[in-house]
Amino acid sequence: MIVELVSTGTELLLGQIINTNAPFLAARLNELGFSVLYQTTVGDNRARMKNVLQTALERADIVITSGGLGPTQGDITKEVTADVLHKSMYFHEESAERIRRYFAERRICMSDNNLRQAMMPDGAKIVENTCGTAPGVIVEDQTTGKIIINLPGPPHELSAMFNTSVVPYLKEHYGIQGAIMSRVLRTYGLGESALEEKIQKFILSQSNPTLALLVRNGEINVRITASAVSETAALQLITDLEGQIRPLISEYIFGIDDETMENSVGSLLLAKDLTIALAESCTGGLVTSRITDVPGSSRYLTGTVVCYSNEIKVAQVGVPEHILAAEGAVSQKTAESMARGIKERYLSDIGIGITGIAGPGGATADKPVGLVYIAIDGPAGIVGYQHYFNGNRTDVKHRTALAALNHLRQYLLII
Amino acid sequence: MIVELVSTGTELLLGQIINTNAPFLAARLNELGFSVLYQTTVGDNRARMKNVLQTALERADIVITSGGLGPTQGDITKEVTADVLHKSMYFHEESAERIRRYFAERRICMSDNNLRQAMMPDGAKIVENTCGTAPGVIVEDQTTGKIIINLPGPPHELSAMFNTSVVPYLKEHYGIQGAIMSRVLRTYGLGESALEEKIQKFILSQSNPTLALLVRNGEINVRITASAVSETAALQLITDLEGQIRPLISEYIFGIDDETMENSVGSLLLAKDLTIALAESCTGGLVTSRITDVPGSSRYLTGTVVCYSNEIKVAQVGVPEHILAAEGAVSQKTAESMARGIKERYLSDIGIGITGIAGPGGATADKPVGLVYIAIDGPAGIVGYQHYFNGNRTDVKHRTALAALNHLRQYLLII
Repeated sequence: MIVELVSTGTELLLGQIINTNAPFLAARLNELGFSVLYQTTVGDNRARMKNVLQTALERADIVITSGGLGPTQGDITKEVTADVLHKSMYFHEESAERIRRYFAERRICMSDNNLRQAMMPDGAKIVENTCGTAPGVIVEDQTTGKIIINLPGPPHELSAMFNTSVVPYLKEHYGIQGAIMSRVLRTYGLGESALEEKIQKFILSQSNPTLALLVRNGEINVRITASAVSETAALQLITDLEGQIRPLISEYIFGIDDETMENSVGSLLLAKDLTIALAESCTGGLVTSRITDVPGSSRYLTGTVVCYSNEIKVAQVGVPEHILAAEGAVSQKTAESMARGIKERYLSDIGIGITGIAGPGGATADKPVGLVYIAIDGPAGIVGYQHYFNGNRTDVKHRTALAALNHLRQYLLII
Repeated sequence: MIVELVSTGTELLLGQIINTNAPFLAARLNELGFSVLYQTTVGDNRARMKNVLQTALERADIVITSGGLGPTQGDITKEVTADVLHKSMYFHEESAERIRRYFAERRICMSDNNLRQAMMPDGAKIVENTCGTAPGVIVEDQTTGKIIINLPGPPHELSAMFNTSVVPYLKEHYGIQGAIMSRVLRTYGLGESALEEKIQKFILSQSNPTLALLVRNGEINVRITASAVSETAALQLITDLEGQIRPLISEYIFGIDDETMENSVGSLLLAKDLTIALAESCTGGLVTSRITDVPGSSRYLTGTVVCYSNEIKVAQVGVPEHILAAEGAVSQKTAESMARGIKERYLSDIGIGITGIAGPGGATADKPVGLVYIAIDGPAGIVGYQHYFNGNRTDVKHRTALAALNHLRQYLLII
């Protein structure tokens, strides 16, 4: 079954917003076994939208639109859909009642325009919107059996409606037997081609499950997707392949699916009942901000000092002045003193010190922008790392933060 | 002139990456006065890409593709472009030499595949790639005068090539006289409809310059775009309209164009020769991380304590235990003590204290998730704010950070 996604909206055409609906739908549809071969974006213009929907219906079995279900005159997607399928529109009392209730519950005054959202193509299946006022519709062309599905534009409304209503509809309508499941192994520390080489045998021989590498924010994700008669059977296929791949790259895998590096670090700290404190210089609080993105991180983070200046490094973290004088603020010894000092002053089991040159200024002949030292002091003693990171100031901050969290993860694994 | 954007690549169809090239090109082309009416995405499949390019050539004057210029067998965009325009391909020695040099300079071994990138459609104008190996091409259809432009997929290569080579070409080829300029007024603190109401008169009567509101990450941007015979004349039109709009919303404007809230705060601190220190609880270092995203922030940031626990608030920030006992960690008094304490201990002119409940846990009957207190202590005395923010844990952190930076900005404006 071939699907075409049609995104509507002038903001998209003008480049004012980024289209996240199309990749969301494409990824989910592929998991279900549908082929998304075309994605088109068109504005809120009747003639052009009609042209796009007609072209889409010629080359696809299912057309899914997003946007243009709102209450304004510019919201025309349902009308154009009805037009293309030669259907008229009618007033759907049940949807009108739901819209009235939505406004009443929120004590917002409803304008009559909002009832435009209750106008529906004849014979359409109405799909409830649990997060907003615009219902979606599924309209079938009786002669060809092809289908147009209209979904709302706001991403959280679209994703909720797709997952709760459209997926079950598609499964039933197309008699999709079995299940397609996937699992993502999240890795850090190995480049794309090096990682590919390690698991090349499985990439070349893939059929079911399939394997895909995906680079994202300094991480590389290995996605395993399997289809089988049941979810259990698909999961078993995934688990089998994972069991073969994992030994080849185990030291680089830090998490599964939605598990971030900071989640992984947090779980290890909880499991080992250890606390941490940080002294951050070049990362400026970014590492701690990531650590505190995890709910419950107060159970293992005692605190952090962001110590840009030498004065604060000495007075608040306890770095000896003679080390700063002899080695400089960006040095292995200073990172180690920061780790040790923050651990002692903030009464934690583990201390982390991070110092470097984020740029664009601050470089010297022997210390370039991107030079970073990370030290960890804890039950297994003190360890230190030197890195050279590329990129601009925020790139260096982000790469340093990810490296620091990964060093901490590896430290926790050996104690 | 009507433009159609064609994005190619299987990763896009599978929803593995988000398309940022299309919005970038759409925004720039609109500024230049071109109408982008359609955007299409298609995979690396010869027949389907040919079909899409043919459809695009029927309904647009200029077709701009992105992606598929790489060295692999799947990179077919130039070949399909040549096919659609009935041209053959030839080996462009100059491009080959540039590619060989690119690899030699980086001391990377070049595979023969890379020379596929030097194959060009007959009669094409070759566009140099200053950031990568794949040259772009501009190919004209002699009979219709329509044009296909092939740009590389990596966003930084595409944007550099578009700005430095394609824009001058389009201006010359289509004899674009004059200039289109725009300026963004960045605002914070007023909702979209309230802001719209304040400048409604100008929105309703707009022609040249035009006005657009754009909501982004808790800010609202007001974009003024003018076209005129010269850049100077366009800028004058913008300045005139800005002069009329600004008095109506001046207290909400924190920056212009690329100026972020933290840039604005940094400039004010430098101008007034003041230093700051922060005690962050619920934001976990995020505010300091944003402040340190600005190069040179070490000149005004003395340091920060991330103080999740009461022990650290008392021992390292100097919050009196009796305040924590009587008022709780999330209270106006605690925020004020944090601001005062950090200012004194970190020897800064201004101290900021931030405490709140980021969630999902930690709420009590009278203190819900999203309750935040922000206090600022400095030359103009101590001020405090209470907020209730919506959203999940990271939403609350981001909204709190933006509010804190804005309070600081306003504090700096009155001293």
